[in-house]
Amino acid sequence: MAPRKTVGILGGGQLGRMLTHPAALLNIPLLILDKGEYTPAKQTLLAPSTLAHPDGPFTSEPHIRELAAACDVLTVEIEHVNADVLEAVEKEGLCEVQPSPATIRLIQDKYLQKKYLADRGIPVAPFAVVEQSTEANVKAVAGELGLPVMLKARTLAYDGRGNSPLKSTDSAAIAKSLEFLGDRPLYAEGWVPFVKEVAVMVVRNKAGEVRSYDAVETIHRDSILRVCLAPLRSGTAPGAEVDTGVNDKARQLAEKAVATLDGAGIFGVEMFLLEDGSLLLNEIAPRPHNSGHHTIEACHVSQFENHLRAILSLPLGDTSLRVPSAAMVNVLGVSGSMDPIDDIATNALSVPGASVHLYGKVESRAARKMGHITVTGGSDADVRAKVRTLLGHQPDLDAKFIDEVAPAPVKGHSHRQPLVGIIMGSDSDLPVMLPATKILDKFGVPYELTITSAHRTPDRMVTYARSAASRGLRAVIAGAGGAAHLPGMVASETSVPVIGVPVKASVLDGVDSLYSILQMPRGIPVATVGINNSTNAALLAIRILGTSVPLFQKDTEAYAKALEEEVIGKAGNLEELGWDKYVSDVLKK
Amino acid sequence: MAPRKTVGILGGGQLGRMLTHPAALLNIPLLILDKGEYTPAKQTLLAPSTLAHPDGPFTSEPHIRELAAACDVLTVEIEHVNADVLEAVEKEGLCEVQPSPATIRLIQDKYLQKKYLADRGIPVAPFAVVEQSTEANVKAVAGELGLPVMLKARTLAYDGRGNSPLKSTDSAAIAKSLEFLGDRPLYAEGWVPFVKEVAVMVVRNKAGEVRSYDAVETIHRDSILRVCLAPLRSGTAPGAEVDTGVNDKARQLAEKAVATLDGAGIFGVEMFLLEDGSLLLNEIAPRPHNSGHHTIEACHVSQFENHLRAILSLPLGDTSLRVPSAAMVNVLGVSGSMDPIDDIATNALSVPGASVHLYGKVESRAARKMGHITVTGGSDADVRAKVRTLLGHQPDLDAKFIDEVAPAPVKGHSHRQPLVGIIMGSDSDLPVMLPATKILDKFGVPYELTITSAHRTPDRMVTYARSAASRGLRAVIAGAGGAAHLPGMVASETSVPVIGVPVKASVLDGVDSLYSILQMPRGIPVATVGINNSTNAALLAIRILGTSVPLFQKDTEAYAKALEEEVIGKAGNLEELGWDKYVSDVLKK
Repeated sequence: MAPRKTVGILGGGQLGRMLTHPAALLNIPLLILDKGEYTPAKQTLLAPSTLAHPDGPFTSEPHIRELAAACDVLTVEIEHVNADVLEAVEKEGLCEVQPSPATIRLIQDKYLQKKYLADRGIPVAPFAVVEQSTEANVKAVAGELGLPVMLKARTLAYDGRGNSPLKSTDSAAIAKSLEFLGDRPLYAEGWVPFVKEVAVMVVRNKAGEVRSYDAVETIHRDSILRVCLAPLRSGTAPGAEVDTGVNDKARQLAEKAVATLDGAGIFGVEMFLLEDGSLLLNEIAPRPHNSGHHTIEACHVSQFENHLRAILSLPLGDTSLRVPSAAMVNVLGVSGSMDPIDDIATNALSVPGASVHLYGKVESRAARKMGHITVTGGSDADVRAKVRTLLGHQPDLDAKFIDEVAPAPVKGHSHRQPLVGIIMGSDSDLPVMLPATKILDKFGVPYELTITSAHRTPDRMVTYARSAASRGLRAVIAGAGGAAHLPGMVASETSVPVIGVPVKASVLDGVDSLYSILQMPRGIPVATVGINNSTNAALLAIRILGTSVPLFQKDTEAYAKALEEEVIGKAGNLEELGWDKYVSDVLKK
Repeated sequence: MAPRKTVGILGGGQLGRMLTHPAALLNIPLLILDKGEYTPAKQTLLAPSTLAHPDGPFTSEPHIRELAAACDVLTVEIEHVNADVLEAVEKEGLCEVQPSPATIRLIQDKYLQKKYLADRGIPVAPFAVVEQSTEANVKAVAGELGLPVMLKARTLAYDGRGNSPLKSTDSAAIAKSLEFLGDRPLYAEGWVPFVKEVAVMVVRNKAGEVRSYDAVETIHRDSILRVCLAPLRSGTAPGAEVDTGVNDKARQLAEKAVATLDGAGIFGVEMFLLEDGSLLLNEIAPRPHNSGHHTIEACHVSQFENHLRAILSLPLGDTSLRVPSAAMVNVLGVSGSMDPIDDIATNALSVPGASVHLYGKVESRAARKMGHITVTGGSDADVRAKVRTLLGHQPDLDAKFIDEVAPAPVKGHSHRQPLVGIIMGSDSDLPVMLPATKILDKFGVPYELTITSAHRTPDRMVTYARSAASRGLRAVIAGAGGAAHLPGMVASETSVPVIGVPVKASVLDGVDSLYSILQMPRGIPVATVGINNSTNAALLAIRILGTSVPLFQKDTEAYAKALEEEVIGKAGNLEELGWDKYVSDVLKK
């Protein structure tokens, strides 16, 4: 690593602040250019001993040149910088700039960015430039793209401040939109009926190597990111989404897009997921991104450390999740008062698995990003329940929004983030399978229950089985009777452990079901339990969950202890009553 | 949280540095007292805008008073501070001090500390004070405690600098020890034949509530901590250690000890684990401790954040591990050169799961703590293999030490950190069970294999089953024939999923084994696979592992794909050759 290069960052906000921590960990000297001596980023890393953080706007040429003179590599924490000066600084050999000024300039203009990506085969929404901001031109693009249409500022737009949806082309509506968007060059995008918004962080080094993080679901409100859920799962209701690998698909698309860009660093890639499982790229940020904040706790190497590694040509870090599930909740200013921020943070300290990140901003403003809270946990259900708690402490959020993001489970209905799936070939198996639900309820295991038959709904069964892993299931309990094919067929279409419950049919006492489930060929295992014993199937599923969630292991031990005490209690009772009385008073009741 | 109190820390080394990060995250104003403007801790958190970090020795009264005047709470990152001044500062109402000066003073004198703990029923090694450092007095305590005896400085001892083992009481040996220990008050401890050194971090708030972290195994070399393994496991060889809950026992002991002390903060509790599974408390540090550094990545709330929460009366944080396994490797200076440090750090950047922490120290010295590397992973085996890689890059470590800490696995022998246990009632079952080993080898799963019989070695079986979870096993494959009780009996003594393989005995075609394993009573599940099908037992174990280690899930998918391609290949071959030729050329070979 020696000699370590000095890094200069344009911008001293929270993203710069979060870059200072890995810089300190790796002894990387860092200088921050921003106005003020106490910006979020300047608070958390002293300038190297002989230097000082420059104090000035990150768009000012003399200040950028001052920074460049003291550094080996310049980078940005915001894309609204002066790309011309950065290009000059690099051309003059003053300082390296990563990512390349050309990439930053391209990304600054959302229309050029979209055109560039479309030209390289990246799927994007239909779009068209608005040459001048006149009513006639807007009408023309609306005619081309159809209504509703999204009018967007090409430059200097973030957190929704450059977007105006247009539902009609009457003059008043157009005038209102144009006034909102102000004096900026515009373009338009066709309406995208997405089912989810998705983001992927991608790190790229100078050699062009790219590594992506797991995709996340991003949830916005008033165009500002509020919640981020990692990893992205396929649809939550059984069979709701045919696509089984949306996470992988999103990563591949994001990697492909970033590979086309010049320069090194981390990139945030935002996408739309459509109902048919296809993805459209929305936009790219050439810097750390709010949708990657969870990577600090949840991944082996955070987006921030990987950005530094990339621009310094150090080995790219492991992007994989170190936890089964994670979420990020933004902490937004509610007003000019810091009190709500302090309250949100203090409440979060009592939520197990939550990590509070405040940004050291001295002033609060409504909708200003003041911090975020990351939650990590053993399961989506656990993390989502904690997200619900955290959102409940945010004064600007209503119950409807919270219920959409993190609904409370409803007894007798499938959980939205199940760990166990219970399936059976016919509703006639339900009485045999219900004891499994009682056990899972008793242990607080999130599960779903449905009917799918190997013989009567083969497509539904295959879809169910193929999506089991990407939906987050860790065990499938399948009950079947007679020529009981369901458990084995499901096992052959999934990598999730399948537990087979032989259901006693009208003949052969269940032995037919048992052999059909148990005697699988080498290669495809089914964990078989006793005939009609769905209780043990559920207990086995809980033991499997216990290998990743220690609580379930402890609960299994407690359950065994309770069984032991129950039997010992009965023995005591038997000894006390005598066996004749025991039979008449206890057994016969 | 508002109004947030200002915290002053005595000492500006790496522990202070690691306290600055959570302080920044929670917007806690912090001042560091230490000599110099660029100490490790001062580098990573600017003083609040109107203040400056005081520059002076952390033992100097005027500087402590200056710090106290600017702060609401003082705390320490080193116990060798001036407890009298701290007590005065608190008595005068200048500033609160946490943990209490009385606790710091008690801990500063190792003899008084030990006496205090022993008086409160905490088990410690036999010890005796050496009233004056004379040969006669040393001989007297050696006579009392037996040889060898450990002579220890009562004060100012750390990293082994205050310990001198004495194996004989001849005058030369005593003189040498006394010279080494210098002009400090001494005491002596009886020799402790420990099998492991163990540490537990405990956080205590002002109300006396204590929370412990999982216990860790600490590995020292030349009395300096080198490696820390979390969580502490019971013995690694089957049946080697009867005790099944050494982690819980260590936590309970540490909590009990810390509960007796005054004041709030994090405490590091070091213990010895003896061969019989009992624990002796060695010493307590009233501050963050090297054996808790892994908590930054591995636990929901780090020891550093919990220290701040405790001293500020904020809610204590979740101490649980967020990963299945973690380790910490110290980075020590080798010489005056920084190059070896840079090399160790750079090499670590290529190790997946590793997080590098350098301390920003400007000068290196042999054995100086310059940083540490944390590894988190899905299993002990994975983490240990990476520890092996990391240790291999440390120039002062020899192969023998590395092989002791992280031995390479040996084919055909049990892995030292197994995830799967294969057991059978008799060596005659081995041919049936060997295919399981082939599958586990193919997938790179760490496993152990041994013989234990329900009927012939019932005690051994119970010990094996009861320790399975605390040894880190995530599945047990048990093969048995005839009255096949082994799988079910093991399942009734563990919370780990048990997979039963019915072994076909000499009569009844294995149906007797099958029913004996499968038809378990409600409450105790066994995952049964087909008769003699240990291949499927191993594949099921791998599916279970895949619920916590994503790699195994991906490998299971690849395996199914390969099976599919194999069958399709055979079909193509059959079509090409025709069935008559296929039977004679392919099947008969």
